[in-house]
Amino acid sequence: MNFKIRAATKEDCKDISRMIMELAVYVKMPDQVKISHEELQRDGFCQNPFFECLVAEIPKEHKSKEGNGIGTGLLSKVAEVAKKKKQCVQLQLSVFDWNTPSRDFYAAKGAQDLTDTEGWHFICFDGQNLDNLANGAPKD
Amino acid sequence: MNFKIRAATKEDCKDISRMIMELAVYVKMPDQVKISHEELQRDGFCQNPFFECLVAEIPKEHKSKEGNGIGTGLLSKVAEVAKKKKQCVQLQLSVFDWNTPSRDFYAAKGAQDLTDTEGWHFICFDGQNLDNLANGAPKD
Repeated sequence: MNFKIRAATKEDCKDISRMIMELAVYVKMPDQVKISHEELQRDGFCQNPFFECLVAEIPKEHKSKEGNGIGTGLLSKVAEVAKKKKQCVQLQLSVFDWNTPSRDFYAAKGAQDLTDTEGWHFICFDGQNLDNLANGAPKD
Repeated sequence: MNFKIRAATKEDCKDISRMIMELAVYVKMPDQVKISHEELQRDGFCQNPFFECLVAEIPKEHKSKEGNGIGTGLLSKVAEVAKKKKQCVQLQLSVFDWNTPSRDFYAAKGAQDLTDTEGWHFICFDGQNLDNLANGAPKD
């Protein structure tokens, strides 16, 4: 495999932001992306970061978008960090039901679809509903 | 509301562990609980904690299990921490499809079910599959 995986740096946030938007376009939800690269820098590179990120460096002459093992490499590296550095026993992802290529990819690597097998659903509060909830919090 | 919500301490981990098991029994999956209170202490009270936790303190004379607003109080407090302390724009939860009381509770507070409305599924690697993935990671 002709690429290198490394931990992201603050300087990668512009590219990460661009790739988040590329993914959102692929999953037909570009209007849901609100986060800026400044916010990625703030949230990922502070004292208690909200996320960690790996990036794959690909030589310019190898820029085909599929079939080069980068997806598997990145996923495997995330699993390695989870197991060896963070003592995790589970790696969870989310995927759209219509995204057959990704679902097949995960299934081929042995993943379970917990929504299909156990009935897990995602619940989300945002916007005014989140505000209302927060404003109703009991006082200390 | 006759209770107080506060941040959990390391000393609460035995009670938290007990309540995780009580929840697991309620959702019919007690065999899935592997975490000990020592691991909760390690993961939640280190330099970069994996989770934060709120606990509700209830006076002994008020120990009825339902209908006292503690669930709403805890959920609202989580929303408040998310919005005001962590600048979150979204609060996500997971719930079983058969758990109608909880789904109705979240829906009544304005939550969206992203699995129903957008088709999000949970994907999970664990056990041997996670090991295989980690062992296949590209070398640095």
